[in-house]
Amino acid sequence: MTSTANFQFVEDRLREYKGATQEVIAALLPSKEPRRYLYDLIPEYPNRFGKGLRPSLCIATCRALGGEIDKIIYSAAAIELFHNAFLVHDDVEDGSLERRGKPTLSAEYGLAIAVNVGDAMNVLSLHPLTHNLEILGPTLSWLVFSEIEHMVRQSVEGQAMELGWVRDNTVDIVEADYLRMTLKKTCWYTCMHPCRIGALVATGGQVQMDRFNHFGYYLGAAFQIQDDVLNLVAEGAKYGKEIGGDLWEGKRTLMLIHVLEACEPKERRRLRLFLSRPRLARSEDDIQWLLGLMNKYGSIDYARSCARELAGAALYQYRSTYGDLPGSDDKRFIEEIVLYMIEREL
Amino acid sequence: MTSTANFQFVEDRLREYKGATQEVIAALLPSKEPRRYLYDLIPEYPNRFGKGLRPSLCIATCRALGGEIDKIIYSAAAIELFHNAFLVHDDVEDGSLERRGKPTLSAEYGLAIAVNVGDAMNVLSLHPLTHNLEILGPTLSWLVFSEIEHMVRQSVEGQAMELGWVRDNTVDIVEADYLRMTLKKTCWYTCMHPCRIGALVATGGQVQMDRFNHFGYYLGAAFQIQDDVLNLVAEGAKYGKEIGGDLWEGKRTLMLIHVLEACEPKERRRLRLFLSRPRLARSEDDIQWLLGLMNKYGSIDYARSCARELAGAALYQYRSTYGDLPGSDDKRFIEEIVLYMIEREL
Repeated sequence: MTSTANFQFVEDRLREYKGATQEVIAALLPSKEPRRYLYDLIPEYPNRFGKGLRPSLCIATCRALGGEIDKIIYSAAAIELFHNAFLVHDDVEDGSLERRGKPTLSAEYGLAIAVNVGDAMNVLSLHPLTHNLEILGPTLSWLVFSEIEHMVRQSVEGQAMELGWVRDNTVDIVEADYLRMTLKKTCWYTCMHPCRIGALVATGGQVQMDRFNHFGYYLGAAFQIQDDVLNLVAEGAKYGKEIGGDLWEGKRTLMLIHVLEACEPKERRRLRLFLSRPRLARSEDDIQWLLGLMNKYGSIDYARSCARELAGAALYQYRSTYGDLPGSDDKRFIEEIVLYMIEREL
Repeated sequence: MTSTANFQFVEDRLREYKGATQEVIAALLPSKEPRRYLYDLIPEYPNRFGKGLRPSLCIATCRALGGEIDKIIYSAAAIELFHNAFLVHDDVEDGSLERRGKPTLSAEYGLAIAVNVGDAMNVLSLHPLTHNLEILGPTLSWLVFSEIEHMVRQSVEGQAMELGWVRDNTVDIVEADYLRMTLKKTCWYTCMHPCRIGALVATGGQVQMDRFNHFGYYLGAAFQIQDDVLNLVAEGAKYGKEIGGDLWEGKRTLMLIHVLEACEPKERRRLRLFLSRPRLARSEDDIQWLLGLMNKYGSIDYARSCARELAGAALYQYRSTYGDLPGSDDKRFIEEIVLYMIEREL
């Protein structure tokens, strides 16, 4: 099954939503000095081939609820810019080498420049919010601001959990820990807040935003697990990151948790030893051995089945959250993106 | 001359302004998970012995213009938290080892955790601004927000200039470049915006904020040059950073620009060679040689005299900017802090 065949509609919509967001972002980026190590680097990640999931969910939810794209587009741009800022710092923190098919900013320009560019992107991601002032008025603009603030806080909390596990070489985490970390690191900013903000703006604040939390959580968790699976099995050229990068980093994924539990004591000892070493002391042989172990115990298939269950839960929530809305392309997009999340190949 | 003897009044006021700001910050910091690698680390820098210059200038300007501390305290706290976030990332970017007498966050917890803690502090620094909403109303709150946004953007621009010079091993910068970088990296967030925001809140938006730019610029530049001088000559225990750290980093200071221009061709060749090497390839002997060279050519005295001239210009501007206001402790603080900036020993 190729995603192109089944997800034409989703991919066309993604392109459209992302295109609209990119236009706003491009107009926001300053064309001024200092260029070389700052403003020239800011469009780097946004211009690579990202899918634009977050602004798409935000715009589609707003329109499915009867809102106009002109009212939500600045908030969608803020979310997308924040996402890209987050990636820049994430790559620094993980020591990652590739992002979306090219060297990471930190690999190409060094960590100092990358940290500063990420900081600049974070502050630029706030700028679209001042445009809201004219369109939404000050009170609704502050509500959007509070959502964004909560979104960023959840992300750094999730990131701290994950970094702490690697730093402490924690090996006793269970699935619930992983899901809690994913809720914080991924779900809030990838799905929950985009939907909440879309609904907030569409209704002028007259909506119970928590209604969208379950849908967004299940969808985001399914997305993250698929992301972790792709890190192990995707085709390099398409995928754009180092295949197996998560294994090199010792990242606590569902597959790692599964294999730690499923394997033999002797294998577990070797695995713990591997995890206790710094990244640079890990070898290609180690990585191949670990990948083999995950295949032997069906850890990757297990993660895939978890992602499917979460996608099923998201579809169920979709019905109660969006089901009663009048039919529209935006509503259809939200329904169809659920399966796209777990069947996409990049 | 000891600073304690002459600056009792300034130091007492600093303690008071800083104390009020710290109270607000302490109440803002979440006491929740994840603690160990996030929320426990956020108060680290704010609780070390920083002077609290920025919130002090902000509160004093507000009160000197007839405003109340209750109206400005959240903005002052935002500025102070942002400053501390900036320090955390600055230490990562420079590979610094000590800050305020203790190991930097990056030295102690690794760069990944430090980058993420800095991100968390950046987002937390926005939180006080939502408190403004109740006290100042949405419109004035957005004006404060715009000031903060501009402040952060200027800081990352200045940082990019400085990092770019080190990265490219630029040796042809002149004083005007240094001052422009300092304007961006230091003056806006240390002096100009604190004064502007203080005045904005005191007058409910009825003030020409640009009036404060010259005073803030001269004061900030004097402050930065004194900071660079102290990095070379301060007593370690008092100063709290590695003495000579700027030399190890190859930081483009006024002293470095001066000595590059003043020295003999043969010395200049050796200096350029030194600057072209990575930090780890520089030796203690190199550092001592460079310090000797700066002493030989009077580069440190030259920087001190520049700082004095800038402080003189700040005093001149003080008269036209604050001079007509009714007498108050806050007004006196702003006048007296000018000399404190260049005579302080830490």
